[in-house]
Amino acid sequence: MASNFNIRKACSTDLSSIVRLLANDPFGKQRESFQDPLPEQYHRAFTEIDANPNNYLIVLEDGKKIIGTCQLTIITHLTYQGGKRGQIEGVRIDESYRGQGIGKLMIEWAINKSGELNCHLVQLTMDKKRLDTIEFYQKLGFTASHEGLKLHLG
Amino acid sequence: MASNFNIRKACSTDLSSIVRLLANDPFGKQRESFQDPLPEQYHRAFTEIDANPNNYLIVLEDGKKIIGTCQLTIITHLTYQGGKRGQIEGVRIDESYRGQGIGKLMIEWAINKSGELNCHLVQLTMDKKRLDTIEFYQKLGFTASHEGLKLHLG
Repeated sequence: MASNFNIRKACSTDLSSIVRLLANDPFGKQRESFQDPLPEQYHRAFTEIDANPNNYLIVLEDGKKIIGTCQLTIITHLTYQGGKRGQIEGVRIDESYRGQGIGKLMIEWAINKSGELNCHLVQLTMDKKRLDTIEFYQKLGFTASHEGLKLHLG
Repeated sequence: MASNFNIRKACSTDLSSIVRLLANDPFGKQRESFQDPLPEQYHRAFTEIDANPNNYLIVLEDGKKIIGTCQLTIITHLTYQGGKRGQIEGVRIDESYRGQGIGKLMIEWAINKSGELNCHLVQLTMDKKRLDTIEFYQKLGFTASHEGLKLHLG
């Protein structure tokens, strides 16, 4: 990893910077609400995520600036003989840093952490409209073997 | 629900019946190990799943016979303004009961439970080789909007 980049667990004071990244995205734009003060539901979700030891909500910093985030959640299933999976969600990189391999650093971190925690699989779903992103994950070893089915509730 | 079908949370004495269902499947056959006694790792995974209040490992019974199972896991993210999702995994129906709407009962249970728990989304991934299964989920309202990317670790 380049010398001034650092990956660490997110803390509550990072929340506004994380939501800024989540909102600065073609899809996130329609879904998120990046305001000052931040809507209460983000704080509530952060508290829940942070209190659950199966979650690793991380930030990637360039010096003191937060330029990337993702959430890794470890899930135990009975399938695969009681196997654990690392599931990645909410991957965002600051737009001014895209194309510099920052996303790769972050996903590699999640893969390595999943391995350390004895996961047999790392998984994520990717909106099929994010046309150019699939190759990024394929280069990291992921296979698009599954359909990602979603049902939005009322 | 037909009068003799019942859905309930799984308990440890159901474990062998659940693994029997997991193993009796074209994919499960290659991955699971249904033996008596059951390999220790299934017991370990059951204990972990059961201890985590975000998990709902359920069985569907016909009288006293376990004929279906699935796991619903509730995950909180920062995305969607701190939204919760219900994630379904390990869906299996006894082969002699297939095509009778049992799977529908179970997935509807998971959708309803996710709604009760204030989830905004229900999701699952489905192996693209399970050709005939996608229509089942589409009829229940799911959309194949995402790629399901998987990376198996050493």
